[in-house]
Amino acid sequence: MKDANQSQATRAGNWVDVVEVGTRDGLQIESRIIPAARKIEILNKMIASGMREIEVTSFVSPKAVPQLADAAEVLAGIERRAGTYLSALVPNVKGAERAAATGVDAGMLFISVSETHNRKNLNRSIDDSIAGFAPVVEVLRAAGKDVMGGTAVAFGCPFEGEIDQSNLLRIVHAYFDLGIDHITLGDTTGMATPNNVRQTVRLLRQHFPGIKLNLHLHNTRGVGLANVVVGLEEGVRRFDSSCGGLGGCPFAAGATGNICTEDLLYLLAESGYETGIDLGGAIDVALMMEQSLEKRLPGQMLRAGPRLKLHSADAVPTAAG
Amino acid sequence: MKDANQSQATRAGNWVDVVEVGTRDGLQIESRIIPAARKIEILNKMIASGMREIEVTSFVSPKAVPQLADAAEVLAGIERRAGTYLSALVPNVKGAERAAATGVDAGMLFISVSETHNRKNLNRSIDDSIAGFAPVVEVLRAAGKDVMGGTAVAFGCPFEGEIDQSNLLRIVHAYFDLGIDHITLGDTTGMATPNNVRQTVRLLRQHFPGIKLNLHLHNTRGVGLANVVVGLEEGVRRFDSSCGGLGGCPFAAGATGNICTEDLLYLLAESGYETGIDLGGAIDVALMMEQSLEKRLPGQMLRAGPRLKLHSADAVPTAAG
Repeated sequence: MKDANQSQATRAGNWVDVVEVGTRDGLQIESRIIPAARKIEILNKMIASGMREIEVTSFVSPKAVPQLADAAEVLAGIERRAGTYLSALVPNVKGAERAAATGVDAGMLFISVSETHNRKNLNRSIDDSIAGFAPVVEVLRAAGKDVMGGTAVAFGCPFEGEIDQSNLLRIVHAYFDLGIDHITLGDTTGMATPNNVRQTVRLLRQHFPGIKLNLHLHNTRGVGLANVVVGLEEGVRRFDSSCGGLGGCPFAAGATGNICTEDLLYLLAESGYETGIDLGGAIDVALMMEQSLEKRLPGQMLRAGPRLKLHSADAVPTAAG
Repeated sequence: MKDANQSQATRAGNWVDVVEVGTRDGLQIESRIIPAARKIEILNKMIASGMREIEVTSFVSPKAVPQLADAAEVLAGIERRAGTYLSALVPNVKGAERAAATGVDAGMLFISVSETHNRKNLNRSIDDSIAGFAPVVEVLRAAGKDVMGGTAVAFGCPFEGEIDQSNLLRIVHAYFDLGIDHITLGDTTGMATPNNVRQTVRLLRQHFPGIKLNLHLHNTRGVGLANVVVGLEEGVRRFDSSCGGLGGCPFAAGATGNICTEDLLYLLAESGYETGIDLGGAIDVALMMEQSLEKRLPGQMLRAGPRLKLHSADAVPTAAG
């Protein structure tokens, strides 16, 4: 079986895996449909910029999320390079069968850490979701796919508020029982904070020493990269992010979505970490996405540009402070 | 003499002073003039929300910055409460004389850490700026005002790139020689990074053990609050911020300015720090500023609202991830 963390293990301790999720979580909330050919163009630019791991799409019902109905077509069009590792969300056996027929490297299961959110999102209880994992895993593994474990609202639920962490432990235990040790903590509506990121990472490490943790943070309340700093301090070396900060929050009109890939790359580079991804190329990806959606994305680096791009003292106004 | 840090010293170790600079640094770059009466209304709302320290305005030339030509009128209109502490930038003797005639509590001197930026901003060398401090301090102190020391481009210069830190040490030394130990490090164009924040704070603490440090960070490249986390870890307990993230960068159209007050307050509260400021009131301030400027501000909390404002499971769409 391929392993998303294989390359990580053989690299230096300052290596961080950045997983691009723009074409999945970013586009999921967008009403404007981007044609599959354009998605492929953007994905190929991501790969050309050094992005290796990409959560490309989701095998959810095309009726529920029309934007991602082209999952198989998009996956078939991507030009891989050495190290390219493509994943997709897989909600059920039907989704697993669709994924199995593609070249995707890994399927990510998902479940909400709150009962109310799980019922609303997946129309079943947490226990029923857990009970449904085994046949999905079977289909994926039979097709040679890796399986990863996703969670939604891991740091707070918009319906219930604070999370009952016994739910989280129960879910991760279920994943481990299925041989899934690659766990993503999803901050679905931007409720992660420095304190609960630190506390949750420690809790999971304590209960599951071999866990491979991935943080999927949103910037809904402005503290996305502050939470990354805390995650890095706690030893997390894998983060999801979205080109241009694409995405949103269904509960807050105008609020932003995932943490922004280019801003994350800048933070990591300036903090002494390596990612193998070219910042200029990542900015180009975000600009391509802005063009495709004909709207401004919330990322900052795509506006401000690199830190040491110098300006002529003759040309530009300045100001104190 | 009043002391901006007096209250800080008597409070618990988890107290952080948040200095609101929206009406000064935030408005400085805005071409739309806000009437003095409206500024006063906003400032009074800030104070009613628990903000104690406010950098209200700047006594720069009204020709250079028409938006702040009403400095004296605004200061005269503010309704103080217990603990209110008002400051303003003071660039020269003329500005000091104008400040002396108002009820402002403190004047902040300023100087750029790079020669090129100082010449462009103040039309003189760093040495000439330093030589000009004494008479300004004299006028302010004769009027019973506190004096604080400001710096611009302390973490990088848009013209020169990396800063020569011997300039910074020379400047802080000059401030200390004048009895000024209250120093603001200004990240004027958003070039502060986790590494240079950490390194600069340590350098100054090493050379000036009694220094009272204030971080004035911008979010131009998205890492403003990540830098706050690093500042807090290094023991900094005082930060400037701007309502709604008001402000901009003259070198990057569309890039954001100061770190956002409400987002900072949220980060601090969720990290276990106290500020005495009501987050809901601060959000109202940002919304007032948006109304006044008739434009959308980049802050996130004013869109997303408090973390534990729960939503009905019946009412709102949701999504995985």
